[in-house]
Amino acid sequence: MNLLADTPLTKNEYKKVTFLPFNVTLKICAGTSILDAIKDANLPVAASCGGKGTCGHCIVQILKGKYKANVSAALSESLFKKGYVLACKTGIIDDLVISLPKFQQLSIKTVIDIGISEKNKKYISGVHDFAPRIRKVEIKIPLPTLENNYSDLKRLQQKLSNEFDIKTLDCDYHVLKSLPDILRKNDGQITLILFKSDKSWNIIDIFPGKRKKKIYGIACDIGTTTLVVGLVDLEDGKLINTASGFNQQIKCGEDVISRINYAEKPERLLELNKLLIKTINDLIEKAIESLDISYTDIYVASFSGNTTMIHLFMNVEPRYIREEPYVPAMNKVPFILSGNLGLGINNAGRIHIAPLVGSYVGGDITSGLLCTPILTSKEKISLFIDIGTNGELVIGNKDWMVTCACSAGTAFEGGQIKFGMPAAAGAIESFKFTNGLNIKYNVIGESRPKGICGSGLIDFLAESFIHGYVERNGVINKNTVKDKYVQDETGKGIIIVNTKDCFWDRDLVIYENDIANLIRSKAAIYSACSLLLKNLGITFDNIDSFYIAGGFGKNINIENAIKIGLFPDVERGKYHYIGNTSFYGAYLILMSDKNKNMVDMASEKMTYIELNIEPGYMNEYSASLFLPHTNMKLFPSVENLLKQKQKL
Amino acid sequence: MNLLADTPLTKNEYKKVTFLPFNVTLKICAGTSILDAIKDANLPVAASCGGKGTCGHCIVQILKGKYKANVSAALSESLFKKGYVLACKTGIIDDLVISLPKFQQLSIKTVIDIGISEKNKKYISGVHDFAPRIRKVEIKIPLPTLENNYSDLKRLQQKLSNEFDIKTLDCDYHVLKSLPDILRKNDGQITLILFKSDKSWNIIDIFPGKRKKKIYGIACDIGTTTLVVGLVDLEDGKLINTASGFNQQIKCGEDVISRINYAEKPERLLELNKLLIKTINDLIEKAIESLDISYTDIYVASFSGNTTMIHLFMNVEPRYIREEPYVPAMNKVPFILSGNLGLGINNAGRIHIAPLVGSYVGGDITSGLLCTPILTSKEKISLFIDIGTNGELVIGNKDWMVTCACSAGTAFEGGQIKFGMPAAAGAIESFKFTNGLNIKYNVIGESRPKGICGSGLIDFLAESFIHGYVERNGVINKNTVKDKYVQDETGKGIIIVNTKDCFWDRDLVIYENDIANLIRSKAAIYSACSLLLKNLGITFDNIDSFYIAGGFGKNINIENAIKIGLFPDVERGKYHYIGNTSFYGAYLILMSDKNKNMVDMASEKMTYIELNIEPGYMNEYSASLFLPHTNMKLFPSVENLLKQKQKL
Repeated sequence: MNLLADTPLTKNEYKKVTFLPFNVTLKICAGTSILDAIKDANLPVAASCGGKGTCGHCIVQILKGKYKANVSAALSESLFKKGYVLACKTGIIDDLVISLPKFQQLSIKTVIDIGISEKNKKYISGVHDFAPRIRKVEIKIPLPTLENNYSDLKRLQQKLSNEFDIKTLDCDYHVLKSLPDILRKNDGQITLILFKSDKSWNIIDIFPGKRKKKIYGIACDIGTTTLVVGLVDLEDGKLINTASGFNQQIKCGEDVISRINYAEKPERLLELNKLLIKTINDLIEKAIESLDISYTDIYVASFSGNTTMIHLFMNVEPRYIREEPYVPAMNKVPFILSGNLGLGINNAGRIHIAPLVGSYVGGDITSGLLCTPILTSKEKISLFIDIGTNGELVIGNKDWMVTCACSAGTAFEGGQIKFGMPAAAGAIESFKFTNGLNIKYNVIGESRPKGICGSGLIDFLAESFIHGYVERNGVINKNTVKDKYVQDETGKGIIIVNTKDCFWDRDLVIYENDIANLIRSKAAIYSACSLLLKNLGITFDNIDSFYIAGGFGKNINIENAIKIGLFPDVERGKYHYIGNTSFYGAYLILMSDKNKNMVDMASEKMTYIELNIEPGYMNEYSASLFLPHTNMKLFPSVENLLKQKQKL
Repeated sequence: MNLLADTPLTKNEYKKVTFLPFNVTLKICAGTSILDAIKDANLPVAASCGGKGTCGHCIVQILKGKYKANVSAALSESLFKKGYVLACKTGIIDDLVISLPKFQQLSIKTVIDIGISEKNKKYISGVHDFAPRIRKVEIKIPLPTLENNYSDLKRLQQKLSNEFDIKTLDCDYHVLKSLPDILRKNDGQITLILFKSDKSWNIIDIFPGKRKKKIYGIACDIGTTTLVVGLVDLEDGKLINTASGFNQQIKCGEDVISRINYAEKPERLLELNKLLIKTINDLIEKAIESLDISYTDIYVASFSGNTTMIHLFMNVEPRYIREEPYVPAMNKVPFILSGNLGLGINNAGRIHIAPLVGSYVGGDITSGLLCTPILTSKEKISLFIDIGTNGELVIGNKDWMVTCACSAGTAFEGGQIKFGMPAAAGAIESFKFTNGLNIKYNVIGESRPKGICGSGLIDFLAESFIHGYVERNGVINKNTVKDKYVQDETGKGIIIVNTKDCFWDRDLVIYENDIANLIRSKAAIYSACSLLLKNLGITFDNIDSFYIAGGFGKNINIENAIKIGLFPDVERGKYHYIGNTSFYGAYLILMSDKNKNMVDMASEKMTYIELNIEPGYMNEYSASLFLPHTNMKLFPSVENLLKQKQKL
């Protein structure tokens, strides 16, 4: 703690304020409140009371710099001692480093779980044979003699052709430049880094002697909200480290539409591009910093992301994605050198980008399909749902696939929910009412709860609905909720954690507005599925398996997801939660050419349906804005359950 | 003229001195003589008297700047008035621009003749079908609709596939970036620049609407001494302008061996590389300056040059070319983007480099072969000789080819000869003794003679030999030469132009030392041919045709070349002088893919013989150091002629 006595503020003096974990730095006029600075930076912040210091939602932690604050009703002494302050009541009088607590816990540790589980590996279409496009090769090239006086490159080509059956071999210009000297340094013993493009191999780097240092690849899921980077050992294919963090573009808008709007001016498109590249480079740095690895040892990167993110990643105009007829610049992304993008890997490194299907169905789906059996299954029909800030669906099998997307919003990732947070340390990941209004929950990590993540929110809503605390239209029933009911500046709510048990020394509340956001999100997804099926002339019963991916947290309770009408009411055994498939798909593409080809072919084969222009979609959506649905007959098991409850 | 009165020189003051046509600028301490400055700049200069101001060989012309000089025995008043001074007798007291007259006349005009003549086109292997790898395409891409909502790139690919049968199409990253906006600017009407690589087409540039501006290519012969750049209209294949000039590397050494030695330190290799790129860029500039063409309109460049020049052009270590076992870094040159080399054409432009065969047989030979029938002829055997600073030969036909190179020196290009000069305005291009010692000559352009070029030197030597003015060993016969005989600081010589007729107001003399250089050059070439034939077990009579290329000047007299023993004594009708084949080959490669493939295949097929290690070569060479040869039986027509002369 670095408290200051009262000192007069010098007006027009500027202080440097950095917000973590977004790594956003601004120059702020001294005297401005931290809350206003957060708003200036366009970072997400909750402040229901309008800066009166009463709601306590704008709590932040000062990590560095001097400040002046007081304990108050909304800020307990224990938090105050840990450096927490209310952003609305704290003026900036020094250079500060400030952490936004809701986001600070998205650590390396938590996302390691995001990879696909051993159990789920049996479902995947992707192959696990280790055959990356990049290879390190140690080889001894015969020194030239008067009898064998072929050029250096030709002798190298001949040797590689004989020993590795590599027939067509070219080399990067920078390799050619150093070839003559390197070939003669260790009696012709060299180490080559080879990359296989569609038709031929290329030498992309060269070293004298046998080079012990390993080579690495990066798999990366570029999410609208969060990114995951995995560092892969290219000699055995093992995922040796991961890092994840928030997309630093968040300050320019929370969803893809607002980012596209932000990018309207060319310099802002470039700003978004640079923020994304910086996010990725920071994560790469984080993934290698504790290991004896240089970024130059990374020779390949495989990316997967939604269509907008890939446009921004490549600094390509995204405007037409959101203008009718909703068209991306490219589907299959042409070959790019990492040096073109300023990516923090070896400049000669090669980049794979999972192909895009349409404006709102991107590489997260094409690569994600590798984690489902759809690409190899001949007869059975599967439905693959990937729920991020956008919800994207695919129905089909090896022979046909239909896909569409809907705007799910960030509620299931913890956005748009007052005490929502990602599935990270401190999050309530499962939730239950027992014996009336007693509450039981599990928290990720060893912490008092700080908030609630997607899977916890699904549980909360299902339980509240089934127990009659929340009506079918999402309204809280004050009478049944009794002493858990609260009404404050934010609105009406249900207390789920009492002050004494909460990390923030305050009540954790789910508000009616949060419930409305959750219902909108689940309605968007259910109605998209439903409409897609109607277009195909089939029903949910025709689907053999449901593969669920996304950032809810791994403990998603499918039963509860059905109760709120997020997923259809079919046999439970058909459901499989398969984690962050976008990331794992990018990893699989890195691992084997076969996966890359499978994904490219899949993207060509998919039929893309643009929901924006489907006349029936709004009706489907409106009908889904109830718990579980306006038409209760669609959810017979929920109807039964409610009937039983009423009988009791 | 800008003469100065006597003014005291300020010591340690530096002046900027630029030497044309080499465009070399140095800072020189005031008071230094121009001769010393030329030597400092490593530029070629003749100064037999050692700076005494008597020989008059170091004459230079001051184009800009103040100087102080006097008329003298070695500097006539008329030259003095034109700004000429003796470099040894003129101190630097101002910033100067100085022209070295021997080289100043290598103009655009003279080298246009270097292209292949209509008559010679019937001999060539290369095809004249116009099918360059680069194409400008105007096309209208349908705007997307809700029914045709493929991505921008995909719609473009579909349209090109339908209209031009282009199946595999990729695009450069910078094109993709501008694709969405450009596609929507003129209702989908766009202009594309397409490049065909080995396997697929690439969009390398894109413009909205129909672009009227033409696209261009560059063909370039990179010689050790001179470069020729041709500007080609890529819409009709016409050569619309040429420019030529001295290789600015000359100051680092006159032949390939001295350049390789100079390049021993990496920074010097880079210096040579930059000098060469600058030479090329200056010539491109010169070729386009009078036309409404920007360098960005040039999308492809085809280069041909000897192995060392190509290494220096690409900034690749050339050292191993001259160290046993004499190995170049590459034969077929990998694909390079013009941006990689800093070439003065469009950054996205593509570069072809004619493949190299061995350390001393380079792209000038592989591309030059296109200008001979060798690559298509099935039975007849041809000998192709390209005489530049290096002499390179190929014997063979479509089925087999053997090649070797020898160090011919620069005598036939006018180097190493006191009054030698390139085949440019002012050069004596043919020479004859009539009625005893009367001399008849032709001068290129309308000028009094300034010097003598390769074809003139061959004539001079043949005539002098046949008339008995020069002995078989190259010694001048004082008794027969009579009043044309001279002996001065440079040595013994024969006056070929009197003072009154000479541009320099002085006698033009061929010295004994010049003759020795000519004999060494012709011996190197003849002995290389002779040895190659011996290795093949054939004689000159087995050769059906002789194709002669090089910088002698187009009026080379084959009869005289045989008299001095440069070429073998065979039926005259077998000889064809075919000009600058390296340049014309580079042009043909630019014109058609078929030529490129032909050249690539030829380079793979050729057997390269390294003369450096052939035990018999020195003997052959020594035996050739006589006029025409130690073994007169090899030149029966010359022997007969001499017998007839003796009878008279």
